[in-house]
Parts: sequence; structure tokens; C-alpha cells
Amino acid sequence: MENFEFYAPTRIIFGDGTISKLNKYMPPDVSVLLCYGGGSIKRNGVYDQVLDALSDWKVYEFGGIEPNPDYDTLTEAIDLGREKNVGMILAVGGGSVIDGAKLVAAGIPYQGGEPWDIVKEKVKVKMGEPLPLATVLTLPATGSEMNGTSVISRRATQEKFAWRSEAMFPVFSILDPTATYSLPESQVRNGIVDAYVHVMEQYATYPVGARLQDRQAEGILLTLQEIGRASLDTQPNYKARANLMWSATNALNSLIGKGVPSDWATHMIGHELTALYGLAHAESLAVVLPHLLKYQQAGKADKLEQYARRVWGLSGEGENLILAGLDNMCEFFHQNDMPTRLVDYDIDPDDAAEKVKTRFAERDASFGEHNDIGPVQAAEILRMSR
Amino acid sequence: MENFEFYAPTRIIFGDGTISKLNKYMPPDVSVLLCYGGGSIKRNGVYDQVLDALSDWKVYEFGGIEPNPDYDTLTEAIDLGREKNVGMILAVGGGSVIDGAKLVAAGIPYQGGEPWDIVKEKVKVKMGEPLPLATVLTLPATGSEMNGTSVISRRATQEKFAWRSEAMFPVFSILDPTATYSLPESQVRNGIVDAYVHVMEQYATYPVGARLQDRQAEGILLTLQEIGRASLDTQPNYKARANLMWSATNALNSLIGKGVPSDWATHMIGHELTALYGLAHAESLAVVLPHLLKYQQAGKADKLEQYARRVWGLSGEGENLILAGLDNMCEFFHQNDMPTRLVDYDIDPDDAAEKVKTRFAERDASFGEHNDIGPVQAAEILRMSR
Repeated sequence: MENFEFYAPTRIIFGDGTISKLNKYMPPDVSVLLCYGGGSIKRNGVYDQVLDALSDWKVYEFGGIEPNPDYDTLTEAIDLGREKNVGMILAVGGGSVIDGAKLVAAGIPYQGGEPWDIVKEKVKVKMGEPLPLATVLTLPATGSEMNGTSVISRRATQEKFAWRSEAMFPVFSILDPTATYSLPESQVRNGIVDAYVHVMEQYATYPVGARLQDRQAEGILLTLQEIGRASLDTQPNYKARANLMWSATNALNSLIGKGVPSDWATHMIGHELTALYGLAHAESLAVVLPHLLKYQQAGKADKLEQYARRVWGLSGEGENLILAGLDNMCEFFHQNDMPTRLVDYDIDPDDAAEKVKTRFAERDASFGEHNDIGPVQAAEILRMSR
Repeated sequence: MENFEFYAPTRIIFGDGTISKLNKYMPPDVSVLLCYGGGSIKRNGVYDQVLDALSDWKVYEFGGIEPNPDYDTLTEAIDLGREKNVGMILAVGGGSVIDGAKLVAAGIPYQGGEPWDIVKEKVKVKMGEPLPLATVLTLPATGSEMNGTSVISRRATQEKFAWRSEAMFPVFSILDPTATYSLPESQVRNGIVDAYVHVMEQYATYPVGARLQDRQAEGILLTLQEIGRASLDTQPNYKARANLMWSATNALNSLIGKGVPSDWATHMIGHELTALYGLAHAESLAVVLPHLLKYQQAGKADKLEQYARRVWGLSGEGENLILAGLDNMCEFFHQNDMPTRLVDYDIDPDDAAEKVKTRFAERDASFGEHNDIGPVQAAEILRMSR
């Protein structure tokens, strides 16, 4: 087991009916900038529940934060927050809204120049500097409700970067599984796959004797496999949605990644596909991960065999066992209506390979637990996605 | 899944060599009351490592906090802390030292009367009231390094109670597995069993569809089973000790208990056995849990069958399956040199049954997930421990 530091101070308030308790957790006498997305919260009742709970607070609103939140949108929110002198940010939505709200919370008091420097140049955001942030989660997927990470896109320059700070953990996050009931099936599917891939990226590397972390990761994978399909039922299933929501949070609150190597290459390649072709984040991950794992199977053999045995109950050994495990993974994605090949989106794998190769080469990028997935390897992986 | 609130803000610094980094996490300009136990930290080098790291701080010392920390000892530490006007408590030791230090941290600024009221009368300790507490863990077992709970004994009155407050989470805890190398085998054994029982008390109740929590609990049990014996090797095994240490913390940092019913009757009966016969905490748990689970098997049938299947890989169903699972559990305890019957300590089960029955009856006590383990049931369970 590698040395590690674990810190996840966000208070989680979980369960049916918890949004109405929002006021119990709010600091008094603060004006609030309520950040949300495309307006679905106005149709499903979450917006009304939030405003009812905040009747004693002065609330300003900023809607329209898009999937893969755009820097130019967020600067408008920062301007509004500065103008109204707000003291707290409340993000109501999924990972994109929360990620965007993190930059708003850090950007409003930021005086070092352009807030984009926080995202791209990794200007350090120190504890106590950003405005306090709280969240009401409506879409389980990214774990942003219980971590200090944020991913911001800038469409004007076709860029997309992750940044993080311990100062960006939400103070509290409300997770009400019923808030997911009105989600379109595609977004629930995206959440299942996003969480699953997050776990695989912290699990499918090489063994370091971190038995507990392996078991914790496998536990999330098994849970997602068990409840994935039921989460997609037209008639919402509370138990399935509750397990999905809590699994997605635990997939990326850093617990399972502590003391083990990780391989975020799938995310890095996926970010490029989103920037180039507009694939949803989870869609981009699902067309990369299976091929990346096959491509890297020699270096990841021990963990991929363990995955096949423990998560899928398969027996055997070596490449046959590994490929059978990965076949099961793809089958699980397909059962949850998630394609696993670029050609399923009419994207030419060769075109994607060349473009990503160029973009990685331009910034001399390489990823993976051994830092051995560079431009050439990323292109090979994408060519397999056919 | 039941509604829940999860909050565990303690920063964990985990790994080989982390004690020497203590100064990196200490607040500046504060005088420190260093609390420890019987002096083993002076023999194994941990004391020197801590003092080396604290060379820039004014440190007062209070040693001699005993296993099952005694209230009368802790009032001496409170008096010393008040006299020296310390601003922070640093607990270096196992669960008893940390539990005791929690009362010291809460007791020094307490002005409501006797600090015992915090323990017995559950006077609420509010956020910000106690002195900040940090810990250096030397004995993995109780999880006290990452929770807000403390168990205090008062030998003068043969009493022992748990109390808790969110304000009592350590600010940070340093977990260096090598600090456990000098522990006597019996204490490592106690830690393994203590952690295992903690998990079972949050797991072996009735199903509520909390699939992730079940998997997380099973993951800790499987890990402890895998590394228990290796943790007891005379030549210390870093990987085994690291997994033991992190498993024990995760067993009682509240994560696996969130959203599920729990049954702390084993602890409550065990506390009485410690008070009456001086059994070590873990010893008392191991002579209660197997018999309690057999006694309660009808109400716990679903989870005990799941336990036998998933944790022990057994097949079958009903009582045969349940008893086979519990036999395996006892066998695991025995392999780790832990007895599971009162008679193994030359304690008469009938005597224990009568005494605990009387003590429970005196305070009208009942426990268990259905609150149906009262004086009569506790006595029945103890009579089975032969």
C-alpha cells in the first residue's frame, strides 16, 4: 500500500425528503448565488423545494450552466456574484453544475487575474479563499458533491481541464435520490457508466497489496452491476436510485483511490473526444475504457484477472480470463444502453486517432499509471474502438 | 436504504514514516498536552519521533492513561491541562488513549460542572467548544482516530459509557503501520477482532436494500480474514499491518453504518463483562458476538445467510448455512488466538448471566436493532457462552 492522505470533510445529507431540510444546514445571514443548469429543476419541483427552504435567505439566481460547463458562461456567473456581493454559492444540479459552481466560488474573490488561470495554470486556491459552496445533487455521476475537483471546458479554444483544491470541497451536499426521478434515461445511464469508469480507473492498474481498497472498489462495481438496469426502469425504483447515488459519490470521493496507483488516461482521452465530437462525458469514457484495458492488458494483468474473478465470478487465467472479464464489462454497458465503440456514433476511429494524437503531441501529454500512454498509444487505443 | 447524514472531517495521514511529518499538520503557536498510555511509546521509539517533530512547540506530558480509560485518571489530565493553559491535545496511542484524550479535550474548557456529566448525562459538546485534538495511532482497533465517539470507564462506580459529539472528531490522525510493530501479539489480535466485531454489529441485522454498505462491510471482513494471521507474524509484515490499520479505521468511521440498522448489543454486554471481570474489550466482544448471533438468528436470517455466502463462500440455506457461517467466524477468531467462550477465561456463564441481568435491569436497558435484547435475553446469550 502506498502512503496517502485522506481528507473528505463534506457533510452528506442523504435520503428521501432531505432537500426540504436545506435551511437546517445553511449559515445564517448570507446572500446566496443559486447556480443551476438548463432549467430541469424548475420542471421537476427541485427548484421550488430549494426556494421554499431558503425563504429566509436573499437568493440570486444564475441558470444555464451547460453540460461540460463553459468558461465563458461561468465568468457571467462570477460577474453577477461580484455585483451582488454574494457570500455563498449553492449549486443545484449534476456534476457539470457543481464543477462550474466550484469555479464560480473560487473566481468571485479571485484577484490574481483571469479566473481561467485557476483552471489552466493551476493557480493554487487556498483554504478559506473561495466562497463557501453547498450542493443539492440531482444527477449521480461525477462525485463532485464530495470532492475538491472541477472540470471546466472552454469552447472558444476547444480546451478542457481538471483542477482541484482541498478548499473546494462543498461544505455540505444534499443527496435526495427522488430528485433523480425526472431524469431522462440517457442521463441515468451516463451516471452509471461514469461512476463505473471512475472506479475502474482507480482499480485496474497493478497490485500494491491494498486489499481493502480493492474490496471497496469491487464493492462499488458489484453494486452498480446489480442496480444499473433497475435504475433505468421507467417507474423509478428508490432502492436502485439510492444505491446508484451513493455509489457514484463513493466512486470519486477519493476513498478507493487512496494508497493505490491510478490511471486516468481514459478520462484524458475522453475529454478530447468530448471537445472534438461533443460526446457526453460518460459516452466518451465508454468508447475508450474497454479498448484501453485491452491495449494495456499485459501491464494490468494481475488486476484484470482479479476483476474477472471477483467482480464477474469467472474462472480460468491469463488473457482468456482477462478478455472474458472485459467482455462482461462491455455487455454490462450495453445492457445499460451505452455503446462502447466510436463507430456507434458514426465517428471514424482513424479520424479520432489522428486528431487526438495531434492534440496530445502539441502539449507533450502522457498518462497512465506508468505514464506510458502518450499520443501514439492514445491513437492505437482509439483505432481499436471500431 | 434509510436516510442518513455522513460527516467524517478528520484528515488521515497514512503510511510508513508519517509520524515525522507531524509538525507539518500542527497549528503554530499552541502549547500541547501530549497524552499517552503505559509508556510503550517510550520503548518503541514513537515518543521520540513525536517529540522530535514537536521541537518548535511547548509540550506538556500526561502519561498513564490505562486500557478502558478511567475517569479518575482523566480528571488529573484535565487539571494539568487547565493549570498549563494548553491549547491542543495530542493523543499518542490506541483507542483507549484517544478515547480518554477526547474527554480531556472536552473537559478542560467545560464549565458546566463535573466532566463526568458529558459521559453519563450526555451533556452536549458543541462544535468549537473542545480543544482541538489530533492523534498518532499506535494500535489499530477502535476507529476512535476517525470518529467522534469515546468510551470512558469509572472504576470507582463500576460504570462504563460511550458518549459522542461531532465536535470530537480529531482534526488529523497519523496512521503509521510501523508504529504497531512492537505491539504484543495479544493487542494485535484484539485489534483484528475488535474491528471485525464492529463491522458485524453494523452488518448483521436485517436487509434494507443498502447494497453498497453491505459490500463495503463485507470488504472489510474479507480483508481482515485475509490479513489477520499474517498481522500476527513475529516478523512484522507491513502490508498486513497497513491493511489491518486502515480496515480498523474504516470499520468505525461510520461509513459502513450509514443508512443501515445496527445492533450494538454485543458491545453493551461486552462492556459489562469488562467492568465485572476485567476482560479486554475485544475479548469481551468475542465471547458475546457468536452466541448473540445464534440467539438472534431468526430475525437476522437474511443477513446471516448473505454473510455465509459472500464472506465465506458457503452454499446452502437456512439454519445450516447460518450456523456454518458462524462456525467459520469462530474458527477465524480461534486462528487469531482469540477465545469465544466465557469458560475459556474460567468465568462461570451462569454467574455472568445473573450479574449482567441485574445490571441491565437496574437501568432498564435494552439493545439490538429491534431493541429486544434486554436483561433476560442478555442472560440467555451469556449462558450460551460455554
